[in-house]
Amino acid sequence: MSNIDTMSVNAIRVLVADAVQKANSGHPGLPLGSAAMAYELWAKHMKHNPTNPTWADRDRFILSGGHGSTLLYSLLHLFGYENLSIEELANFRQWGSLTPGHPEYGHTVGVEATTGPLGAGMAMAVGMAMAESHLAAIFNKEDFPIVDHYTYVLGGDGCMMEGISSEAFSLAGTLGLSKLIVLYDSNKITIEGSTDIAFTENVQKRFEAYGFQTLVVEDGNNLEEISVALEAAKADKERPTMIIVKTQIGYGCPAKQGKSSAHGEPLGVENVVSLKDNLGWPKHDPFYVPEEVYANYKKNAEKNVILEASWNVMFADYCTKFPKMKALWEKYHDENAAEKLIDEEAFWIYDEKAEATRNLSGIIINKIKEFLPNFIGGSADLAPSTKTYMKDEGDYSKENYAGRNLHFGVRELSMAAIGNGMMLHGGLQVYVSTFFVFSDYVKPMARLSALMNIPLTYVFTHDSIGVGEDGPTHEPIEQLAMLRAMPNFSIFRPADGTETAAAWYYAISNKKTPTGLALSRQNLPQLPGSSKEALKGGYIISASKKEQPDAILMASGSEVELAIKAQEVLLQEGMDVRVVSVPCMDLFEQQSAEYKESIMPKAVTKRVAIEAGTDFGWGRYVGLQGAYVSMNGFGASAPEKILFDKFGFTVNNVVETVKSL
Amino acid sequence: MSNIDTMSVNAIRVLVADAVQKANSGHPGLPLGSAAMAYELWAKHMKHNPTNPTWADRDRFILSGGHGSTLLYSLLHLFGYENLSIEELANFRQWGSLTPGHPEYGHTVGVEATTGPLGAGMAMAVGMAMAESHLAAIFNKEDFPIVDHYTYVLGGDGCMMEGISSEAFSLAGTLGLSKLIVLYDSNKITIEGSTDIAFTENVQKRFEAYGFQTLVVEDGNNLEEISVALEAAKADKERPTMIIVKTQIGYGCPAKQGKSSAHGEPLGVENVVSLKDNLGWPKHDPFYVPEEVYANYKKNAEKNVILEASWNVMFADYCTKFPKMKALWEKYHDENAAEKLIDEEAFWIYDEKAEATRNLSGIIINKIKEFLPNFIGGSADLAPSTKTYMKDEGDYSKENYAGRNLHFGVRELSMAAIGNGMMLHGGLQVYVSTFFVFSDYVKPMARLSALMNIPLTYVFTHDSIGVGEDGPTHEPIEQLAMLRAMPNFSIFRPADGTETAAAWYYAISNKKTPTGLALSRQNLPQLPGSSKEALKGGYIISASKKEQPDAILMASGSEVELAIKAQEVLLQEGMDVRVVSVPCMDLFEQQSAEYKESIMPKAVTKRVAIEAGTDFGWGRYVGLQGAYVSMNGFGASAPEKILFDKFGFTVNNVVETVKSL
Repeated sequence: MSNIDTMSVNAIRVLVADAVQKANSGHPGLPLGSAAMAYELWAKHMKHNPTNPTWADRDRFILSGGHGSTLLYSLLHLFGYENLSIEELANFRQWGSLTPGHPEYGHTVGVEATTGPLGAGMAMAVGMAMAESHLAAIFNKEDFPIVDHYTYVLGGDGCMMEGISSEAFSLAGTLGLSKLIVLYDSNKITIEGSTDIAFTENVQKRFEAYGFQTLVVEDGNNLEEISVALEAAKADKERPTMIIVKTQIGYGCPAKQGKSSAHGEPLGVENVVSLKDNLGWPKHDPFYVPEEVYANYKKNAEKNVILEASWNVMFADYCTKFPKMKALWEKYHDENAAEKLIDEEAFWIYDEKAEATRNLSGIIINKIKEFLPNFIGGSADLAPSTKTYMKDEGDYSKENYAGRNLHFGVRELSMAAIGNGMMLHGGLQVYVSTFFVFSDYVKPMARLSALMNIPLTYVFTHDSIGVGEDGPTHEPIEQLAMLRAMPNFSIFRPADGTETAAAWYYAISNKKTPTGLALSRQNLPQLPGSSKEALKGGYIISASKKEQPDAILMASGSEVELAIKAQEVLLQEGMDVRVVSVPCMDLFEQQSAEYKESIMPKAVTKRVAIEAGTDFGWGRYVGLQGAYVSMNGFGASAPEKILFDKFGFTVNNVVETVKSL
Repeated sequence: MSNIDTMSVNAIRVLVADAVQKANSGHPGLPLGSAAMAYELWAKHMKHNPTNPTWADRDRFILSGGHGSTLLYSLLHLFGYENLSIEELANFRQWGSLTPGHPEYGHTVGVEATTGPLGAGMAMAVGMAMAESHLAAIFNKEDFPIVDHYTYVLGGDGCMMEGISSEAFSLAGTLGLSKLIVLYDSNKITIEGSTDIAFTENVQKRFEAYGFQTLVVEDGNNLEEISVALEAAKADKERPTMIIVKTQIGYGCPAKQGKSSAHGEPLGVENVVSLKDNLGWPKHDPFYVPEEVYANYKKNAEKNVILEASWNVMFADYCTKFPKMKALWEKYHDENAAEKLIDEEAFWIYDEKAEATRNLSGIIINKIKEFLPNFIGGSADLAPSTKTYMKDEGDYSKENYAGRNLHFGVRELSMAAIGNGMMLHGGLQVYVSTFFVFSDYVKPMARLSALMNIPLTYVFTHDSIGVGEDGPTHEPIEQLAMLRAMPNFSIFRPADGTETAAAWYYAISNKKTPTGLALSRQNLPQLPGSSKEALKGGYIISASKKEQPDAILMASGSEVELAIKAQEVLLQEGMDVRVVSVPCMDLFEQQSAEYKESIMPKAVTKRVAIEAGTDFGWGRYVGLQGAYVSMNGFGASAPEKILFDKFGFTVNNVVETVKSL
C-alpha cells in the first residue's frame, strides 16, 4: 500500500470526522470503518466519470447504509464531482446544502439512489443489475458491449438483517446477476451493542445458499486484499458476489473505534484531533486535505475520462453499424414517448360490456408494450390474478435476460425497491404488481419512489371487499387513504375502461411521480360519462338537470356506478343530484381552486362520499354537513355481492343517506 | 402406516376438496399436499385438548399458509373442536360462517392466529416461542415445568420467500428457540409456476446459516418418516428445527397434482370424484367421513384430555408449594391489572420542565414495569433513541430468557409480528418500538394486530420534521394519517407528559385495540391545560374567553404548544379562539355526537388544523371553510428549529392563517 493511497483513504476519514463534528450531528462510524474499501473501489476499480456523472455505461454505486453519507460526499468531493465543494461538506446537514443527512437522489449529483431505510439500497442495487442485464441482452452486439457495467452496493449489519435484502438477494442468486457486487461492511456492532444480541447467523453461508460467490477480506484496511477480492468478484460470470469486509466501526478514532457510540454521534472535538494525530494527518485544521491527495484522486479520475471517451467511440461506431439499434436506443431513452398516446383513439375506447378493471388494465398493458419497447414489469407471484403478463414478450430469467415479464416471487417489499432500482438505472419504464391489500408491504418503497421522483407504476388489484371470499386479510380498507396521504404519489381508482386508460396514461407519461392503480377484481360496467377528464382527478361523470344540484354524490371505482344508480332514483324522488367521479384525489387537489369549485361548488353542502373503504380523507370534500357511505371496520369472507349488500353499498342506502341530510 | 391412519389423512383431503368445491372458491393445493404431516402432528405429537382449546400449556400450531385454511378447519372438525361442525365446513367462505377464507383468530375456536399474508405466521410463531421461553424461565421450578410446550408452524414456498420470515428466523436462530418447529411444505410450485423462476436458493442451507437444526422428509406422505423427524425436532434442546417436507401440491387429485392450477381454485366436480376414487374413499357423497375415522380422531384426542388433567394436578401442586408464584401467575394473567393506574397519582403528574415525549415515555415505561410484572418489550435496534429500555430488568437472550428487554435487531416488520405472537401466546403485555417513519415497515403487521384485536403497543419516536438533520428519509409526514385511517388502531400523538401518560394508560388498559404512540425527539413544554381528558381523544386544552369562540385551533403533539401561543397573540388582536388538543383522532371519533359538538361546535366554521404532517384526514373537522397549517411535501435535512420555521410552523403563520378565514 503506497503512502499516497493511505493518505487518500485517511483524507476520507478526516473529512468525515470534520463534517460530522461541524454539523454536530451525523454518523461517523460506518465511513471511518469502510473508507479503505470505498477508496479502493472508486479509485482503482469503478468506472465513473466525475466530469459526466450520467454516462450511461458507468458503474453504479449505492451506499445502502445511507447514514454513512459523509463517505459518499467525501468521495464525490475528492474525485472532483461538480458542486460538491469543500464548503458543501462543511455545510453537512444544513438547510439548502447538497449534503443532507442521508444521500438524496436528484438532489446531489453523483448520488445514484436515496438511502437511509436500511436494506433498501441492497434491493435497489439488485434492480439496477437487473436493468443492466436486460439492456445488455437487448442492445449488445458482438464486439459492441455498449451496456457493460457493474453495480456495487455497500452496507452493514443492519442492511443484512432487514428482510428486504434477504428477498432481493435470493432473487439475485436465482437470476445469476454476476455483475452485482455487494460489499458487506462487517463490523459486528449495532446501535444496541454487539451483533451477538440479535444477529449471530452465518451471513456468508446464507449468501452461499442464495447462490452467491462469497469472499472474505480479513483486514478491511488492506487495499491489496480488497483489490484482489474485487477482481475475483468481477471475474465471476455466473453468480453475484458478496464480499465480507471485516472492519472496525469508527476506525482511526482511538476512543471510539469498535464501539456502538461511534455509530451515530459526532466524535467530539478532542477525538477529532486524536483521530488526525493517530492517522498521522499533517494538520489539525478542519477540512484540510493536502494537495498531493487531491492530485492522486484527480489522476485516478482521469483514467475514467479516457474510458468514457473510448466508449463514446464504440457507441458511435455501433450507431453507424446498427442504425435500427440506434433508433431503438433512442426510443428506450425518450422520456416523452408515452405522451403521444393521448391522441391514440384506440387507447381510449373500450367495449361496452362489463369488465373488471384488472382485466382492462391487462389489455392496456398489452397495448402499451407495443408502443413502448422499454416497458417491462411483473408481479410478486400473482400475474395470473393481477393480469400483468405481457403476451409473447418472454420471461426475464438467467437464461433469458431479454424477457420482459419479471417474476419477483412472493416478495412485495423488495419488488418495489427493485422496480425503483430499475428505473434509477435509466432506459426502462417499469411496473410492479400485487394485491392492493399488500400495498401495505410495498409502502416503504413506494415512499422512496415518491421521495426520489421516480415514476414507477404500481398495479394493485383486488381493490376492496369486491375480493369476496378471501376475507378481511385480503380486503383493502385503509389502503386508498394510506396512499392518498403520501406526498408525490398518485393513486388512481378507476371506475371503468376509460378511467383505467387515463390512470395508465398518467402513470407512464408523467416524469416525476409514482402512480398506483387500484383495480377491481369484479366486473364493472363501462360508464357513458367517463372521459379523459379523469386526468383531472375529479370530474362530473353524471350531471344534474339543474346547474346547481341539490346534492353532490362523490365516489371512486366500483362505487361510481352505485352513485349513478342512486342519482336516478333520487331524481324520481325529486332530488336532482350531481355525480362526481374522483379516480385520483391527488390530481384533483392539484387543479385550480376555480376548477375544484366548478366541480364541487361550496354552496352545495349536501354531499355524500361513497367508497368501499374507510372514509378517512374524504372530509375535505364532504365538509361538516355531509355524510359517508363507507367501511368503518374490516371486511368479511363471503361472495362479493353479499358483502356489498351487507356493508350498505346499496342504492337504497345511498338514497336514504342523501335524503337524511 | 396403518389403514386407519391413511384413511384419517384422506378424510382431511376429502373434506378439503368438498369444502372448496361447495364454496366454489378456495385453495385446495396446500391442504391436499400437507394433509399427512398435519395429521401426524396433530394426532401423534401435538399437545392439544379439543375440549379446552385455551389450555395454557397446549402446544401452539399456526398455519402460516393461511390460504390452506380448510386444512385447519378439517383438523378442528375431525378432532371434535366445539362449533366446527360439518355444516360449518359446508359453509366454507360464506357470510357468518366459522370458516372464512383465511383463518381468523378470535372468530374460530382453535385458530391461534390470523394468517393469510404469507410469512406472517412464521414470525408470529417465533413470537409465541419467545413468549413460551420467557414464561418458562420466570415460572418453571424443578419438577414443575408448568410452561413447557412447543410452537409448530406450517407454511410453504411463499412463506419462505417473504422477508419477514427471514428476519424472524435469523432472530430465532440467535435466540436458540429450541421449542420452535417449522414445517416447510416444499412443493416447488407457486402461482406463477415452478419455484425455479424466482426461488432456486438452498433453503436448508439458509436455515443452517441461521443456526437451525434442519431435517428432510423425502416423502411427505410417509407418516413414519414425518414422525421420526418430529421426534428429532423435539429432541434438540439447543436449536429451533426446520423440517423440509417434500410434498406434491394438490396430492390425490390426478388431474391437478403437481400443478400451479391446484393452488387457488376448486378442483372441479369431476376431479373431486376422481380424487375420492383415487384415494379409495368409500363414498362419493360430499362431506362423508366414515365412523371409524371419527373414532380414530377421538381416540387420539382423548390422550390429550389425560395430558391436561395431569398438568392440572401438577399446577395445583405448584400453587400449593409456591404460593408467591401462584400470585405472580395470577398477576401475569390479570387482564384488568393496568386499569388501577387510572387512580395512581404519580402516574399522571410530570415535571414542569420541557421534555421530549420519547423521554417521558421512557420514564413511564419504567413506572409500568414495576406495576405490571408481565410487561416486556424492546426495539428494532433503536432502544437508546426510542427510550424503551427497562432498567435493571435484564436482556432477553439465549442465556437469559427471563430478561424483559427484547432485542429484535434491525427488523421492524418481523418485530411487530413477533409482538403479535407473544401477545397471542397469552400471559404477557408487550411493546415494540422503532422510529415513526418506519411505521411504514410495521404497517402490515399492525394491521394484523388490529384485525386480531390484539392490544400490542407500538412506541414510535421521532414523530415529525422535529427529527431535524437526518432529513426526509427519517421524517414522518403521512404516517399519522396512515395509522389513523386503519380500523381498530389507535394512534396517539401526545403533546406533553400528561398526554403521554394517557396514551400509555390507554395502550395497556384496553383489551381489544393495538395502540401506537407517536413521540417527539425534541423537548416539549408541560402544558397547564393537559389532563386525563386526553383519553377522549380530543378536548379543550385552552379555552376561549367567550363560550362560543371566534375560531377553533386544533392540533396534536408538538403543535399544541404553537396553537396556544397563537391563541394568545390572536386574543391581543381581538380574536377569541379555542384550542383543541387532538392526541388521538380514533378515540375522538368514538365519543358521542354531543361530546364532539361540545368540543367543536358546528356553528364555528373558522377552523384551523395545525400538524407537522400531511393534513389528509383533518378535513372532517376543518370543513369546507377552514384551513390548514401542515406539510404538503417531504421534509428536509437541517436543525429542527430551522425546519419548523421554514415549513411555516410559526406563531405568525398560524395567526395569519386564522385571520385569513
